[in-house]
Amino acid sequence: MYKATITVRLRQSILDPQGKATHHALQNLGFDSVDRVRIGKSIEMWIDAGSSEEARRKAHAACDKLLANPVMEDFEVDVAEA
Amino acid sequence: MYKATITVRLRQSILDPQGKATHHALQNLGFDSVDRVRIGKSIEMWIDAGSSEEARRKAHAACDKLLANPVMEDFEVDVAEA
Repeated sequence: MYKATITVRLRQSILDPQGKATHHALQNLGFDSVDRVRIGKSIEMWIDAGSSEEARRKAHAACDKLLANPVMEDFEVDVAEA
Repeated sequence: MYKATITVRLRQSILDPQGKATHHALQNLGFDSVDRVRIGKSIEMWIDAGSSEEARRKAHAACDKLLANPVMEDFEVDVAEA
């Protein structure tokens, strides 16, 4: 069993209203030194695979087909034995 | 300037309906080898601080005060120069 940790983020050029709202809330709480906030998803996926390469391939395919929007988002995949 | 990468996850004992729905959708797409999915947030925060220790302290404080729900969620903070 392998665990893939997938991070899906909005591309830098895409406006992130959730991040902006969080930044604003942090400033209201006195966190003046926070310059910018962006919010993405962190997906943990446990995969039955024969090798970490196979698990990585499956995680990539899942991102391409479902988890990430290729127009607006980038993703990273980390695989570890679990 | 430092960049804190904060991962906020539901505690293992808390049901994750978004992860369950994603798991179900993956199975419908033929990803039979996916055993379990859990979904959390990945927050990038750029912080003006004199040292990485100070940036880490501020990121922790922001999690405690706003970003994570201590009853249901755990968080991790990674800090790097940006």
